[in-house]
Amino acid sequence: MADQSNYYDIVVVGAGPVGLMLSTCLARWGYKIKHIDNRSEPTEKGRADGIQPRSMDLLRNMGLKPAIMANKPCRVYEVAFWDPSKDGKGLERTGTWASCPRFIDARYPYTTLLHQGYIERVFIEDMNKHGAHVQRPWTITGFESDESSNPEYPVTVNLEHIDGSAKETVRAKYLFGGEGARSFIRNQLKISVRHKDPIAYVWGVMDGVVRTDFPDIKMKCTIHSEHGSIMVIPRENDMVRLYIQIASSTDKNFNPRATASESEVQAAAKKILAPYFIEWEAVDWFSVYPIGQGIADRYTLDERVFIGGDACHTHSPKAGQGMNTAFLDAHNLAWKIHAVEKGFARRDLLKTYESERRHVAENLLDFDNRYAKLFSQRPPAAGEVRAASSSDSSDNEFIKTFKASCEFTSGYGVAYTPNALNWSSEHPARSLLIHPAGTKLRTGRIMINANVTRITDSNPVHLEQEIPLNGSFRIFIFAGNLEKTRDALRDLSKGLSHKKSFYTAYKRSDIDSVSWFERHNPHSHFFTLATIFASLRRDVEIARDVPEPMSRYRDSIYADDQSDDMVPNSRASAHEKMGLCPENGGVVVVRPDGYVGIVVKLEPGPETVSALNQYFASFCTKDVGGLASQL
Amino acid sequence: MADQSNYYDIVVVGAGPVGLMLSTCLARWGYKIKHIDNRSEPTEKGRADGIQPRSMDLLRNMGLKPAIMANKPCRVYEVAFWDPSKDGKGLERTGTWASCPRFIDARYPYTTLLHQGYIERVFIEDMNKHGAHVQRPWTITGFESDESSNPEYPVTVNLEHIDGSAKETVRAKYLFGGEGARSFIRNQLKISVRHKDPIAYVWGVMDGVVRTDFPDIKMKCTIHSEHGSIMVIPRENDMVRLYIQIASSTDKNFNPRATASESEVQAAAKKILAPYFIEWEAVDWFSVYPIGQGIADRYTLDERVFIGGDACHTHSPKAGQGMNTAFLDAHNLAWKIHAVEKGFARRDLLKTYESERRHVAENLLDFDNRYAKLFSQRPPAAGEVRAASSSDSSDNEFIKTFKASCEFTSGYGVAYTPNALNWSSEHPARSLLIHPAGTKLRTGRIMINANVTRITDSNPVHLEQEIPLNGSFRIFIFAGNLEKTRDALRDLSKGLSHKKSFYTAYKRSDIDSVSWFERHNPHSHFFTLATIFASLRRDVEIARDVPEPMSRYRDSIYADDQSDDMVPNSRASAHEKMGLCPENGGVVVVRPDGYVGIVVKLEPGPETVSALNQYFASFCTKDVGGLASQL
Repeated sequence: MADQSNYYDIVVVGAGPVGLMLSTCLARWGYKIKHIDNRSEPTEKGRADGIQPRSMDLLRNMGLKPAIMANKPCRVYEVAFWDPSKDGKGLERTGTWASCPRFIDARYPYTTLLHQGYIERVFIEDMNKHGAHVQRPWTITGFESDESSNPEYPVTVNLEHIDGSAKETVRAKYLFGGEGARSFIRNQLKISVRHKDPIAYVWGVMDGVVRTDFPDIKMKCTIHSEHGSIMVIPRENDMVRLYIQIASSTDKNFNPRATASESEVQAAAKKILAPYFIEWEAVDWFSVYPIGQGIADRYTLDERVFIGGDACHTHSPKAGQGMNTAFLDAHNLAWKIHAVEKGFARRDLLKTYESERRHVAENLLDFDNRYAKLFSQRPPAAGEVRAASSSDSSDNEFIKTFKASCEFTSGYGVAYTPNALNWSSEHPARSLLIHPAGTKLRTGRIMINANVTRITDSNPVHLEQEIPLNGSFRIFIFAGNLEKTRDALRDLSKGLSHKKSFYTAYKRSDIDSVSWFERHNPHSHFFTLATIFASLRRDVEIARDVPEPMSRYRDSIYADDQSDDMVPNSRASAHEKMGLCPENGGVVVVRPDGYVGIVVKLEPGPETVSALNQYFASFCTKDVGGLASQL
Repeated sequence: MADQSNYYDIVVVGAGPVGLMLSTCLARWGYKIKHIDNRSEPTEKGRADGIQPRSMDLLRNMGLKPAIMANKPCRVYEVAFWDPSKDGKGLERTGTWASCPRFIDARYPYTTLLHQGYIERVFIEDMNKHGAHVQRPWTITGFESDESSNPEYPVTVNLEHIDGSAKETVRAKYLFGGEGARSFIRNQLKISVRHKDPIAYVWGVMDGVVRTDFPDIKMKCTIHSEHGSIMVIPRENDMVRLYIQIASSTDKNFNPRATASESEVQAAAKKILAPYFIEWEAVDWFSVYPIGQGIADRYTLDERVFIGGDACHTHSPKAGQGMNTAFLDAHNLAWKIHAVEKGFARRDLLKTYESERRHVAENLLDFDNRYAKLFSQRPPAAGEVRAASSSDSSDNEFIKTFKASCEFTSGYGVAYTPNALNWSSEHPARSLLIHPAGTKLRTGRIMINANVTRITDSNPVHLEQEIPLNGSFRIFIFAGNLEKTRDALRDLSKGLSHKKSFYTAYKRSDIDSVSWFERHNPHSHFFTLATIFASLRRDVEIARDVPEPMSRYRDSIYADDQSDDMVPNSRASAHEKMGLCPENGGVVVVRPDGYVGIVVKLEPGPETVSALNQYFASFCTKDVGGLASQL
């Protein structure tokens, strides 16, 4: 075998949020990564800083939430709106509302604000633990992708130290461009960027420590005054970020190189905030930059060279979506590369990275426009705020738009459209057991949060977090009433154990040497099972009630016996929140990134596993299923 | 001035839980500490490992909870009881119950199990950040305490490297012995240890990684079989601790040096657990040791040399109280030393260390006896378990004992008896405003947990955690209905601002240079104020509704608008849980260690501050109060 030292699974260019998320995931799953960045150090100051509720779910699922929280970020629960007061003498608060209202049912209903550099360091430390490192300051000078020359490592990448003192040429299975809005890789691929909103803006942004008597300085605020508008974002360490729009391309004499000094921006802020005072004790970062809405036409040309994050989409910083969308771009791609490279999914699964993520970016840009307009029209009335925070559905147009905005900014609005992964009535899986009446789970949407009690140790846990980011599909078996579902569980057991089932077809080759303590992947690297009974914890005995293979996942067996404010009088709140029958249960397949793939009835007989086989057969590499007659 | 390099505020001997807690507190408050330990390294294996709910409150209040949790400890929510099955063929579970039932209303209703070495390291890292270090392996060889020779540094301590290669003599204001059951300092002081229970026991304890099909291996279990009894305690990293009683002094031929080999204990455990199998993959620690119940007659002779932790009290390991009692010993002493040394409290406050903590130890030993007997009599019936978990008070004797046990083991049962700090009708403070009818707060008991919303940033917070361990008394001003209490708040403001009030009499000498961002101690090192309105957050405007000095504590002003399951239909759940009127409020003084000192009505006029002056005058150094006529 030739020298493999310059062969990599992937070359990642750019160590911002998108590149770091991608490397962090792949490093955990054992991939060999070349990661470069053209800066000498992680981000020192400024840049993105808002982690949305959905991103926090993901960071928790990766075990990174404590490291983020150790930096003592700000948490924003409410947004306040300020306008000129009616007496013309200053400002008044016209309303406040929850940044992530209760109807969203987020596990972490707040925006976490922390300097991007701290966030980058959390990822870098985790990557390092798994043997991946960022090589700095290095840049990419060229690349070529050619499957015919080397089908396994089709990508050749030329790298160079920023001062030209050293060069490397490496071969890789994949190349990823997370280099930001001016992506070299995107440009080389001649992928053009289209602008949905023709208006460009120049923004000033300032991070600093301020003394002020403005009462909402620790909340996210939008302040309109006759002297202009600013947005206030509280930050860690008594800092505050102020955004000021300096110019837009609708202005006469618009110049995208428009500029303003630090003191000019401070003077403007003082005027806008009057009669409140504001003084800067220190300015941590100040920048003025032009930004337009743009979206890349393609995210890849050949499913070998990909781009993501700001290389694919740019938009205003107001809704705090940049870093969050970048995280989810990378996350979406990471598990798909894993599924393909480990031989589970067919290569064309990688096409869904662009189709899913580009659709989200389109929505983001639409939203960015609507969001700006929503507040420029009129402030919401108090009754509308209350209505918008409830889960009542008799809403007027304003409230509907607002609710959609909240879902979107929280990250819970991401909805992947139907494809092989996200079942719909167009999917090749046609079993009548699929998507039973009543289910509240929507394919392509995040699984609903629920509290349950783990059987083995009686710990109350967050069900949606119980399976960590391990690259596996999560099969949640809601087993209903254990007296009623005994036969269905037995037949599920039989069906899963059949050698042509999706589950057994991909069993680990080293299955005989797997540790007794392996919790999530004892049988397969592609599936983790969890079983939830609509019973009290003390009424479930694993040895008596749970057949193999579910019983082997002994720390992923739960009692649905916790109360939940969202379904106050429910006896089995997790079943009820999912819209699954607490007597008969149901099987929920959740993609490795947490989005619902398919929901199937749990019934005695071979049909439940058959429906699951149909689903996986639509994208996996082996001929699974066709088992109905053999059970 | 002579060379001060060998002068210390305190010499602490022993770096177990009690010594480390003491140094960690005092280091944060700026004291110069000489801390020695005769071991070369922190505890490597074994020893104590259970952090009770009350101790977790304290660790959280010190900001140390995340560092503890980063070690991924086990959490025990339930205790299971196993007895020989009725058919004589094996074991059966006779019941399970919550280790910290709902009626206790603990913030963290579980026991956290983690190897003592990890816990020690969390303290050591925190001490190091504040400039204090443990000098190892050094021991104490002698000491003398003589106020006449040096009133400021009366204690002379001789220290020596364990190998005799180096010696030091240092002078200190205080000496603390946290050296464990065989305390040199206690022995030198000729303080005797009395044994309440004449029975001594020999225990075997084994930490190991086990494979077993025993279903409750991840819960705390007491298992009785015809072959003997064991106690199971789950641990981090798939470990399990087993306790086996090997002999007691009621046995014929009792020998306190009784011993058993690792394999003998394993063989015994296998017999007891049959028909379940158990196999050890690894043994981390194994020890056999005799232990008796003992309590030191005194904790100090002159309030200069103190002892705490195991040096003062020893008992069986079953209820997991050793480390927790040690934490609270140290915590109790730390703030009292601080209050005396900084000139706030009279020196005789230090006498309350022994009176308060020795009383708790007496209760602990009584409890240790009762706890053992409770379960040897009979297992509880299911109905009794349910009743015991509710807050219903129509209980039989068994349930009463059980409830008291749960309170005790959770750490919430600690009740300091009346003295200058813990108001009672015998206290010199006699104002009729004290202890208003209806209050549910009990002096000498921990403050009740409550959720409120911080005004400045809309964050929902844990009120009892909002003021960190800063050595200050916590003055919680429950301000009721802001329309009703406007006059009372104005008069409270006036009273506090009077130069002879307890509050202003101890104002900081550097008050003019205090930072805008100082949150908890802008005026005084001895008091932190917090104000809670029985209103919705949006109805409170600090500038309009909160007078000085309360308004200066701008991040400690709250709306009592969060719901609480313990008082489901309440409009102001924090007020209601405390038993304070949601219209008129009340003032609660909480000691620096979290125990309630006094509750006073909030009324217009001078009497509220006058009652508080009376309280503090009973132990502070200045002549505060006597202000009624001057307001």
